[in-house]
Amino acid sequence: MVNEFQHTWAIILGGSSGLGLASAKKLAESGMNICIIHRNTRVELPGIEREFESIKSIGISFLSFNIDALQPEKRQEIIRKIKSEIGSEKVKCLINSIAKGSLKSMTTENSLTTDDFLLTINAMAISLYDWTKAIFDAEMFHQDARIISFTSEGSLKPIPNYGAVSAAKATLEAISRQIAFEFAPVGIKSNCIQAGVTNTKSLQLIPNSEKIKEIAIKRNPFKRLTEPEDVANVVYLLCKEEAKWINGTIIKVDGGESL
Amino acid sequence: MVNEFQHTWAIILGGSSGLGLASAKKLAESGMNICIIHRNTRVELPGIEREFESIKSIGISFLSFNIDALQPEKRQEIIRKIKSEIGSEKVKCLINSIAKGSLKSMTTENSLTTDDFLLTINAMAISLYDWTKAIFDAEMFHQDARIISFTSEGSLKPIPNYGAVSAAKATLEAISRQIAFEFAPVGIKSNCIQAGVTNTKSLQLIPNSEKIKEIAIKRNPFKRLTEPEDVANVVYLLCKEEAKWINGTIIKVDGGESL
Amino acid sequence: MVNEFQHTWAIILGGSSGLGLASAKKLAESGMNICIIHRNTRVELPGIEREFESIKSIGISFLSFNIDALQPEKRQEIIRKIKSEIGSEKVKCLINSIAKGSLKSMTTENSLTTDDFLLTINAMAISLYDWTKAIFDAEMFHQDARIISFTSEGSLKPIPNYGAVSAAKATLEAISRQIAFEFAPVGIKSNCIQAGVTNTKSLQLIPNSEKIKEIAIKRNPFKRLTEPEDVANVVYLLCKEEAKWINGTIIKVDGGESL
Amino acid sequence: MVNEFQHTWAIILGGSSGLGLASAKKLAESGMNICIIHRNTRVELPGIEREFESIKSIGISFLSFNIDALQPEKRQEIIRKIKSEIGSEKVKCLINSIAKGSLKSMTTENSLTTDDFLLTINAMAISLYDWTKAIFDAEMFHQDARIISFTSEGSLKPIPNYGAVSAAKATLEAISRQIAFEFAPVGIKSNCIQAGVTNTKSLQLIPNSEKIKEIAIKRNPFKRLTEPEDVANVVYLLCKEEAKWINGTIIKVDGGESL
Repeated sequence: MVNEFQHTWAIILGGSSGLGLASAKKLAESGMNICIIHRNTRVELPGIEREFESIKSIGISFLSFNIDALQPEKRQEIIRKIKSEIGSEKVKCLINSIAKGSLKSMTTENSLTTDDFLLTINAMAISLYDWTKAIFDAEMFHQDARIISFTSEGSLKPIPNYGAVSAAKATLEAISRQIAFEFAPVGIKSNCIQAGVTNTKSLQLIPNSEKIKEIAIKRNPFKRLTEPEDVANVVYLLCKEEAKWINGTIIKVDGGESL
Repeated sequence: MVNEFQHTWAIILGGSSGLGLASAKKLAESGMNICIIHRNTRVELPGIEREFESIKSIGISFLSFNIDALQPEKRQEIIRKIKSEIGSEKVKCLINSIAKGSLKSMTTENSLTTDDFLLTINAMAISLYDWTKAIFDAEMFHQDARIISFTSEGSLKPIPNYGAVSAAKATLEAISRQIAFEFAPVGIKSNCIQAGVTNTKSLQLIPNSEKIKEIAIKRNPFKRLTEPEDVANVVYLLCKEEAKWINGTIIKVDGGESL
Repeated sequence: MVNEFQHTWAIILGGSSGLGLASAKKLAESGMNICIIHRNTRVELPGIEREFESIKSIGISFLSFNIDALQPEKRQEIIRKIKSEIGSEKVKCLINSIAKGSLKSMTTENSLTTDDFLLTINAMAISLYDWTKAIFDAEMFHQDARIISFTSEGSLKPIPNYGAVSAAKATLEAISRQIAFEFAPVGIKSNCIQAGVTNTKSLQLIPNSEKIKEIAIKRNPFKRLTEPEDVANVVYLLCKEEAKWINGTIIKVDGGESL
Repeated sequence: MVNEFQHTWAIILGGSSGLGLASAKKLAESGMNICIIHRNTRVELPGIEREFESIKSIGISFLSFNIDALQPEKRQEIIRKIKSEIGSEKVKCLINSIAKGSLKSMTTENSLTTDDFLLTINAMAISLYDWTKAIFDAEMFHQDARIISFTSEGSLKPIPNYGAVSAAKATLEAISRQIAFEFAPVGIKSNCIQAGVTNTKSLQLIPNSEKIKEIAIKRNPFKRLTEPEDVANVVYLLCKEEAKWINGTIIKVDGGESL
């Protein structure tokens, strides 16, 4: 059987859990080689290693780096390492699944600061540009590459304590569109997936996440939460040859929950 | 090799040219059986027959009906015929590619009438509901069916002479969302594809279509028009198992032209 | 004191209750003459007459016609009558507040029919074009006229039993945009107001309206429903000289409820 | 004649030119007191002083501060000064018209850096939150205050060299919505105005601005650019009592150009 993704790589920022990890698995099963950039504590590593082992056992090439993806020097260093590892193979897919932000109110005691906004926007949104740029400068992108990032209904809807993340998601969408526009001449397609409420580690950090899940299930026409696999499925579809004319848009993958 | 679409059918309204025909071909190549509903004059039939022959030669089952899809009695009659033909096989995919509308200005001599609006909206939009309903009532839908219809940037953007079609596309999107919402319990997913400017017969009917094509190419980040095959590719993706959590949304398939 | 609306008229379709009536009152208080087109049964008339008397008592000129605004001959007849009444005075403002539609499910026993869609879309949406056109043809529009129609979140969000109305609202918005685009050369500005959930007669006809109100109050950042006067206030603002560069858009007047 | 804005203040960030200055004039003419925060070089000051003198001559109270509105200490210092000047009078309106950002491509030699994004987003977007928060903490807001900021079509549409500004505008809109949502309990309404292409100093800094203006005029249904006064007019409308139910939205003030 022909493997459409043979000799190509996915670089997945924030790939040790949630949507990033599920995407890694799905792409690996489809034959793509996987490079995961993640940031985890020592305590979390054994569990993560088990996940990585299961990906490796699929039989694709696998790299992982436990570093801070947001530090420019680290990024350059990792890019060099990846390049030396993958040789002439190309990056077919860059996924930004970094979820790191301040969850605070605007009006209460310990409210959002300027820095909370800047750090959240940098981590979740500008990072997409920084990594796109670094891979581009290193001439590692496939001639028909796909850049995929994860947004949420929160980019347009205020949610309590979600002000900085909402701003970061709005920024992310704008940057994704601008990449779609400016990098088209080199064959890159850039899109966001707007996932429904998904039961990930990031969600659990949001105060009131139980209530959020309950409402989401009730609203959803299919009466269930979004699973990481639902989103990974569409990451896979977006990497396929047939998706090459989808560029600069936001695809809702939520079963209709946001209707 | 496993054929994921074996024993399933696509019913394609307006499938004798343009996006509908391209979708028929792509789905046939993927192993889905094809039923095309079209309305053509005798003069057009030989060319269309050649297209249909090429689809049949792929080796799937094929049906076609040259009738007015908008007449309720005809619709019921055809549904009965299809049902008797496909037996216990199911309709995996319903595609609405009907393009039939009044292209007139609001302000000039021969301007849009109430009937122009009603006929255009009925042909291009309400037909989606009517066929969905008829297939549903006949219990012919697959338990994981996909309904796909084609919209355009014109649903939100006024274009000269396009008032009735713009209204029809806006209606179509609303109906697609409502179907996504109400038919979810029976496993149906309903989505619109917003194609970029595509060089189809329907486009050529729009006054100034040469100018529209020229502007579209200039705007498009990839500097080309949308091809029917670009859209058919995404129809195929939306029929795949992996797309089952996409419901009630509009997917732009335009290379980024609408940015 | 200068009256900015002196010698101008508002024609209000569906002006005998709800948003239309509240708009009539507000504009009358601001000095605009009022012409209300409504359709009511004999039983409802005494209450309506009291409302009309209170408008007349403000001291502006007042006309009202209890007819079916959707019949072409009636429309022409009324236009002629209005023209003969207002003489050289002009129509500054046309408001479409017609609320008449089928509230049915798509999937249950007595489900939506093709005609339900067509009648609802005709009544709530195409009527905007028909009246705009008729007043335009009769050369009655002010050189800086405002066309205002009322939409709702339901144009984009499916609501149970609301399929036909949702389609009509989507159509209305498209027609409003097209009017904004095509009638700009004659000085017309056309906009929609997207009101929050308002406790009008039309709302009360929706099954489950009590639940809808309860949810709306909870969602609304100001924890109350939208009042007809809230919407009438913005109708007034849109008629002012300072609003003349607002054209072709949808203004939410809901306190932030749709966020 | 009653002055609806008597004893209230507008604080206008970036009020020495363009949309900010035009808004200051319009509000002053309507009787609101004006406080302008701006950042200008010595060379620019004489021209600006003339503008300020013409505002003062209207007869309202007037304050201005030539400082960097983005420095936290400066902000606190100015807030204290304003408070001591205005005494028990309240801030009815806060306007963010700061236009300061990097105009660079993503792909060429001297391309956008992480810092370009952060500085632009901080200056144009987070500043809205910072000033809202500072005025709120100082208990200076009117019980029915209006926060208004200026966005552009560029928040959703990529424009060459506009990547950082596009991101900033998207962030601004998200922050405006979040403010609308979280500050509603204290009576604040927050909205964005999306102006059409306006011939301001900021526009002239964009490479290709002549081309942008030319296209805008051609696209605009009224065949002219947006004037700062068009936007100032709507700032005034949004400050009126009648606009109090408009919250958390984006109002297009472009004559229909973005259609």
